[in-house]
Amino acid sequence: MTITLETVQSAARVVRGRIHRTPLIPSASLSRMTGHDLWLKAENLQKTGCFKPRGALNRLSKLSAAERARGVLAASAGNHAQGLAFAAADARIPVTVVMPANAQPSKIAATRATGAEVILHGTVFDEALARALELRETTGKVFVHPCTDPDVVSGAGTIGLEILEDLPGVDAIVAPIGGGGLTSGLAVAVKEQPQGRRVRIFGVEPEGAPSMKRSLEAGRRVVLDSARSIADGMTGRAVFDETLEYARRYLDDVVLVSDEAILRAMTLMLTRCKMLAEGAGAGPVAAALEGLPALPPGSKVVAVVSGGNQDLDLLARWLSKGLPTA
Amino acid sequence: MTITLETVQSAARVVRGRIHRTPLIPSASLSRMTGHDLWLKAENLQKTGCFKPRGALNRLSKLSAAERARGVLAASAGNHAQGLAFAAADARIPVTVVMPANAQPSKIAATRATGAEVILHGTVFDEALARALELRETTGKVFVHPCTDPDVVSGAGTIGLEILEDLPGVDAIVAPIGGGGLTSGLAVAVKEQPQGRRVRIFGVEPEGAPSMKRSLEAGRRVVLDSARSIADGMTGRAVFDETLEYARRYLDDVVLVSDEAILRAMTLMLTRCKMLAEGAGAGPVAAALEGLPALPPGSKVVAVVSGGNQDLDLLARWLSKGLPTA
Repeated sequence: MTITLETVQSAARVVRGRIHRTPLIPSASLSRMTGHDLWLKAENLQKTGCFKPRGALNRLSKLSAAERARGVLAASAGNHAQGLAFAAADARIPVTVVMPANAQPSKIAATRATGAEVILHGTVFDEALARALELRETTGKVFVHPCTDPDVVSGAGTIGLEILEDLPGVDAIVAPIGGGGLTSGLAVAVKEQPQGRRVRIFGVEPEGAPSMKRSLEAGRRVVLDSARSIADGMTGRAVFDETLEYARRYLDDVVLVSDEAILRAMTLMLTRCKMLAEGAGAGPVAAALEGLPALPPGSKVVAVVSGGNQDLDLLARWLSKGLPTA
Repeated sequence: MTITLETVQSAARVVRGRIHRTPLIPSASLSRMTGHDLWLKAENLQKTGCFKPRGALNRLSKLSAAERARGVLAASAGNHAQGLAFAAADARIPVTVVMPANAQPSKIAATRATGAEVILHGTVFDEALARALELRETTGKVFVHPCTDPDVVSGAGTIGLEILEDLPGVDAIVAPIGGGGLTSGLAVAVKEQPQGRRVRIFGVEPEGAPSMKRSLEAGRRVVLDSARSIADGMTGRAVFDETLEYARRYLDDVVLVSDEAILRAMTLMLTRCKMLAEGAGAGPVAAALEGLPALPPGSKVVAVVSGGNQDLDLLARWLSKGLPTA
């Protein structure tokens, strides 16, 4: 996987006008609470409620006529499925998504609503992924990886370009890590620009799924025995060799946050900013509230609110009955 | 009470730069569901989470030096208290608010946090109001009425000026009615402009508290035996002679919505727009979803999201256990 400033800039030309240029929203309340000058990059207001269409549109723009006719294929528990389905519908390309049966019903329904073929297989992401890879062999469809496809990661990186354009004096950017694709693209987009070199980039993971943190510490890809968090978008047992390499090269640190801190951030974003974030989308705010390592008070900090596709029934349960116990 | 286009325009000059010019946000999802071209005037993103600072700032700008020294006084279950406390803090004017003991704890805390003196008295708004009027006599403080003070109502009307500036082709504006101040100011601001004369203005009330609807039908101010809704900002047993007169002159209709429809609108605004509205703030979207009387499909409709100060514990209870029964 090779991501450069040029591949991200090229992706920006592809997505322009086809997705929202999401606002960078200052928050007086969160600034007061974190001691920083805190801004939210509101990708929860992106089409499909998440940043994923950026990468999907960029990837689909590279297909040959024959590939477009055969269609595309993905495995996803939610946001990548919706992003790809949205992009494929836009380009009239057939799309098949394998989703684990435990995916949120609202995400399954939203993916089907775009016209995608949804196959439910297995109970966790790994099983859905295995089935998708089988289908690649038997159908010849193009498999689109959510984290290691260079066009997908370059598309995610366009968020970094927009942040640097809209807030040139930014000191730090904080983004969630699921498989590590978002932080890879974002970090290249920012740090490969002369004015972005000094910007610190932090990844965020849940305490219950610190796959990137442990891999960076070990100097190799670590597969966790288990992964557990209310933030499904940040809950993976392992990152990828490709994204680990980019994290090693570009990230200043990876911060771990508890589920309690994530839920508190979600609650504050709702009550103070009137904004719904999913767990992964609230992760960066949780990290900023807990304290970012070695960042001077008053720094200009952008929290990437990666998505807002939060099941309300689950959220209501956490708020009224407390967090699930292990 | 006399509200004119000029008093609203004067209020606009007072509030400019001291509050947010809130965005007018299009919603593709809600447009599809309502069959209209639906826009949200996001006063839930206003300072204090509600439109009330507009009127409060305008009223306080008119105080004499002696009045400023004595301070101001209000009765409120929440948003008016916060709006007045915010405006008074801004102008360093002492403020006392009488709140009923059943006001949401978060609203009491937020009002106190601005430096206001909060007196808890009685269990319903009427009792708090009576106490505030007593205090007016004994302290000489200036009482600021939330619905019939012409400066307060003119301040609320500035919302109408902004809508007409931002969306000149608007066909209809829908706003909640509590005491009737917001719709009075808004309607004058819009319909007294030549280009606003054709815009239809709808008020919204809960089925459980149709005080304006019944008053318009009866041709006189009707005091309901009871008033009940999950939308506390739209739940009053009676409107005022002054606001009834403006409703008679300016409103095209008053639409009633059930608590179920209000909760559905709140849920859709969260899941589709990622936006938290309180019950009254979701009322106009509920009305648009239920169908606005005699409005052709495809009309440009603005729903005024009056506020977003929704207690999350209550919302979680409604979502997980259902609505309260009478």
